[in-house]
Amino acid sequence: MADLAGLVSDIASRLQAATDRGRVADYIPELAKVSPRHFGIAVITADGTEHVAGDAGEAFSIQSVSKVFALVEALSRHGNRVWDRVGKEPSGSAFNSIIQLELEQGRPRNPFINAGAIAVTDLIAEGRSPGEGLQSILALIRRLSGDETIDLDAAVAWSEAATGYRNAALANYMRAFGTIAGPVDATLSVYFQQCAIAMSCRQLARAGRFLMAGGVCPVSGEAIVSPERARRINALMLTCGHYDASGEFAFQVGLPAKSGVGGGILAIAPGRASIAVWSPGLSPQGNSLLGTRALEQLAHTMRWSVFNPDIL
Amino acid sequence: MADLAGLVSDIASRLQAATDRGRVADYIPELAKVSPRHFGIAVITADGTEHVAGDAGEAFSIQSVSKVFALVEALSRHGNRVWDRVGKEPSGSAFNSIIQLELEQGRPRNPFINAGAIAVTDLIAEGRSPGEGLQSILALIRRLSGDETIDLDAAVAWSEAATGYRNAALANYMRAFGTIAGPVDATLSVYFQQCAIAMSCRQLARAGRFLMAGGVCPVSGEAIVSPERARRINALMLTCGHYDASGEFAFQVGLPAKSGVGGGILAIAPGRASIAVWSPGLSPQGNSLLGTRALEQLAHTMRWSVFNPDIL
Amino acid sequence: MADLAGLVSDIASRLQAATDRGRVADYIPELAKVSPRHFGIAVITADGTEHVAGDAGEAFSIQSVSKVFALVEALSRHGNRVWDRVGKEPSGSAFNSIIQLELEQGRPRNPFINAGAIAVTDLIAEGRSPGEGLQSILALIRRLSGDETIDLDAAVAWSEAATGYRNAALANYMRAFGTIAGPVDATLSVYFQQCAIAMSCRQLARAGRFLMAGGVCPVSGEAIVSPERARRINALMLTCGHYDASGEFAFQVGLPAKSGVGGGILAIAPGRASIAVWSPGLSPQGNSLLGTRALEQLAHTMRWSVFNPDIL
Amino acid sequence: MADLAGLVSDIASRLQAATDRGRVADYIPELAKVSPRHFGIAVITADGTEHVAGDAGEAFSIQSVSKVFALVEALSRHGNRVWDRVGKEPSGSAFNSIIQLELEQGRPRNPFINAGAIAVTDLIAEGRSPGEGLQSILALIRRLSGDETIDLDAAVAWSEAATGYRNAALANYMRAFGTIAGPVDATLSVYFQQCAIAMSCRQLARAGRFLMAGGVCPVSGEAIVSPERARRINALMLTCGHYDASGEFAFQVGLPAKSGVGGGILAIAPGRASIAVWSPGLSPQGNSLLGTRALEQLAHTMRWSVFNPDIL
Repeated sequence: MADLAGLVSDIASRLQAATDRGRVADYIPELAKVSPRHFGIAVITADGTEHVAGDAGEAFSIQSVSKVFALVEALSRHGNRVWDRVGKEPSGSAFNSIIQLELEQGRPRNPFINAGAIAVTDLIAEGRSPGEGLQSILALIRRLSGDETIDLDAAVAWSEAATGYRNAALANYMRAFGTIAGPVDATLSVYFQQCAIAMSCRQLARAGRFLMAGGVCPVSGEAIVSPERARRINALMLTCGHYDASGEFAFQVGLPAKSGVGGGILAIAPGRASIAVWSPGLSPQGNSLLGTRALEQLAHTMRWSVFNPDIL
Repeated sequence: MADLAGLVSDIASRLQAATDRGRVADYIPELAKVSPRHFGIAVITADGTEHVAGDAGEAFSIQSVSKVFALVEALSRHGNRVWDRVGKEPSGSAFNSIIQLELEQGRPRNPFINAGAIAVTDLIAEGRSPGEGLQSILALIRRLSGDETIDLDAAVAWSEAATGYRNAALANYMRAFGTIAGPVDATLSVYFQQCAIAMSCRQLARAGRFLMAGGVCPVSGEAIVSPERARRINALMLTCGHYDASGEFAFQVGLPAKSGVGGGILAIAPGRASIAVWSPGLSPQGNSLLGTRALEQLAHTMRWSVFNPDIL
Repeated sequence: MADLAGLVSDIASRLQAATDRGRVADYIPELAKVSPRHFGIAVITADGTEHVAGDAGEAFSIQSVSKVFALVEALSRHGNRVWDRVGKEPSGSAFNSIIQLELEQGRPRNPFINAGAIAVTDLIAEGRSPGEGLQSILALIRRLSGDETIDLDAAVAWSEAATGYRNAALANYMRAFGTIAGPVDATLSVYFQQCAIAMSCRQLARAGRFLMAGGVCPVSGEAIVSPERARRINALMLTCGHYDASGEFAFQVGLPAKSGVGGGILAIAPGRASIAVWSPGLSPQGNSLLGTRALEQLAHTMRWSVFNPDIL
Repeated sequence: MADLAGLVSDIASRLQAATDRGRVADYIPELAKVSPRHFGIAVITADGTEHVAGDAGEAFSIQSVSKVFALVEALSRHGNRVWDRVGKEPSGSAFNSIIQLELEQGRPRNPFINAGAIAVTDLIAEGRSPGEGLQSILALIRRLSGDETIDLDAAVAWSEAATGYRNAALANYMRAFGTIAGPVDATLSVYFQQCAIAMSCRQLARAGRFLMAGGVCPVSGEAIVSPERARRINALMLTCGHYDASGEFAFQVGLPAKSGVGGGILAIAPGRASIAVWSPGLSPQGNSLLGTRALEQLAHTMRWSVFNPDIL
């Protein structure tokens, strides 16, 4: 096996110095303030070893990466009823597109585009106060990371709520079709807050360990989800985790992964590693530019792509 | 490891007896004549062992499964220039949809929907007669299968050409944008013929072996494509191989695979197996109903999903 | 000239007895309570004569017919700045479709589909309280009708607000693009209330007289809009007044007209007559079935189509 | 009445000198050769007086203006069966868009977009040789114009056929749904040739007289179509005659009219005048820029808009 520690540190050095860093998301004012200079990486392997480099300890807004944890929480609470509300197909369109909703009677394509994630959040919030809904997601993330200090960044949540008109359009549209059953404002409130959860690469990689390990947290031994469900969540991350660049990511990197417009990506090499990268500059499709490059180099060198024959 | 021979034979017995068999494609008259009673399966493992059951020796129309071999041929001939013509993203729409072409200036989303495959075929036919174009695809398939008897079914090719108006619409539309550069009729002629290639499950599983083995034919030792390219073709098969049911297939089965409306599916368990199944009845999205079920049972029992942690 | 009085009364008799009456709108609960048995008609000719029949004196919810008056009010207040926000083209899609908004950067096709009307209302409400915005529309309608008793039906307004998720989606979507500048809730509140204005056929026909008469109210002699603007509003009513059935209406009837899901239609025969009809049962496109039939018979018999040569 | 002769000559002088002349269509190579300097106008009033100015005697490619005559011919031959194949609604999209066809099962929105006109031509060619189909359209135009010399420009027809891939896509797509029943190549051949008919403004204005006069040719007294049908064709020209700029044209000019990418427009003031203008430079939507301006000035000064009250 390649020297993973050296590789992680090499990747960080190279990418910290990169000049083409993409564009920081500016449609949420609070996110626009983050410097594009950041780069962090954390890799946790199956045996529990942690390799970190760069700004791996600095918290950032996980944004859409939270959709993975929200899905886990909704599946735990409602089981496969979740799939009555959202599909499992790549959308073929942008993360915030509303066209598909009209063409398909208000049913979002998958839980990792905004519409789908809002529908998932609505299920989590069902029969609860918005506060309880949010706390259940936070509690899951804290448990997975083994870190009770993780919390949301209220300024970001506020900023999202104040400018989240397209998400409000999606939520109202789905409410008209019954895809969302609860009060639109309450569901959006939970959604904006879950997106504003702040985590470091190290915390995020820890939170992803159960997906590397067949659904079991390798530290506590707790079964978070069944092996079947872990496999299926990985499949969804691979086909839908990068919006309308999911195909390209699978082609280049070959790992289940979920990105967020805060510049973070959580990637899973099943049986091998849970990986988190962060760099705020984005590609036109809204995925971290340097984060993607880091994962490409890591997966290539380590031969971690799920499409490699020598995964044997 | 589970008893693969027994499993293959079990699956065949069960599915030969299944009553809900889907609907045989009827838009190509010649295909509509095939009996839905057929079921065949062939599994070739990394060590070269072949397990076959049911109608594994009977030839069927491979239809869109040919898109995998056409892509390999085009990449061999033109390298990454192929990606100037077609994308790598799931389309989010039906196999024969033309909407995406208009919204994206005549560039098809990926090489495994009809439009993309026609563009790939156009590259193969570039600077050649239609006959030479077709022969190059046939030659590749014969070499991969080690079987010089494989040929096309002229009646099916003729039937497709006579009713292929939607494909003609796609080809003409792309020609208007330069995605196709050659004469539309010549390109369509090669396309209709490549779809009409007839193969048995056994032949098809053999032809897929190089994708299981990092690009190398395990029998001849010949490098068909680079390991990198094999990995990437697998990625495309996983994200785009089942049209607008690709996400569901990844979720349920978790293997790179390409289906055809003749009822065949070629699936790859990287490092493990090359698998071909055939049953003519289709799901509403145009994928073999029993073929999919067979792959689900096989992948589940053998733990072959690429999203499993124990691929280690 | 035909005997108009006799014709109006004939039409009413025939249509009151009609058995195929369409379907009363049910997506606004309060509207669903209205009996489909109603039919009313009022025709006011250029010389001021009024012919009424059936339920011409009974108030109904004018719904989208209010979009004509809102447009007049916005043009009076903001002039051609209105056209920076909305277009003048038929939409080719349903009254509440959101697809066009995404394809055209949040700019609605015309002021007579829901999105366009909401954008117009936002201009009216600009720099005012919602109450003032609504009052300005009501004041215009009362002035045009010469009837200070016209008011909104609060139960309908409330019912619309409580179920208006698709309109809320449209408003939020446009707010994201700046097509709407004010607070979404305030704009929607004015919009839902303007739709709930209740008028009788007689009142509505009176309110439309200025469009028959080159912009001048024939009773008061007041210039409501310039002749140019009156002509152009008539043009918009003809091309866009019946959503995605506007072409059919122009083909069959040939008059500028605006329909509402309450079952009312205001139609203008320039230089000849202002006409209001009402019957709550709707066609699949959301236009009054018997109202359309009444206008067809009236326009045909009176030779009032704007496409007739003998308008000379 | 204004001095029409002086007005026509004024308009010609001003527009011949205009500097912003739009862009000559370049997607048909033969059309791209035409100089943008041309401007012609011909106005024939109800009493038969002809006013011409500029290049009113020079033949140009009528292109889509031919769709009006093809529709008349198809209606004469097949009656309302035509409406089984095409709709009567504005399309809301570009003249050569294919999206609407997929969303609406291969049925074109109206006979004045390319898809609809091809479907109409297919009906004309039904049961005939392509040559007979074309001759029937030519014969109608010659009869209406009283000019047996009118013919097609073979170089233009050839140029269109050689580059008409988008039209071929539309035709093949409709053939797949049965909207077109005949051989695609034969139908396209008639279509390309009818578009290549060359006429002068004077000839075109003469050919349009029957639409001004309730369906009757004012010279021969022959009833070309019923008054009802003439009125309805006028309605279609108003709602659909300028593709996705039809609403704007109705708003600005207010006359039924059909434009072609050769730069010609035929406009009808019912009961008043048949008008033809020509200037090759186009707006972005594909309509003659100066032709539209000429019609706007003419309609405004003469008060010919069908939406004016003083049409009395």
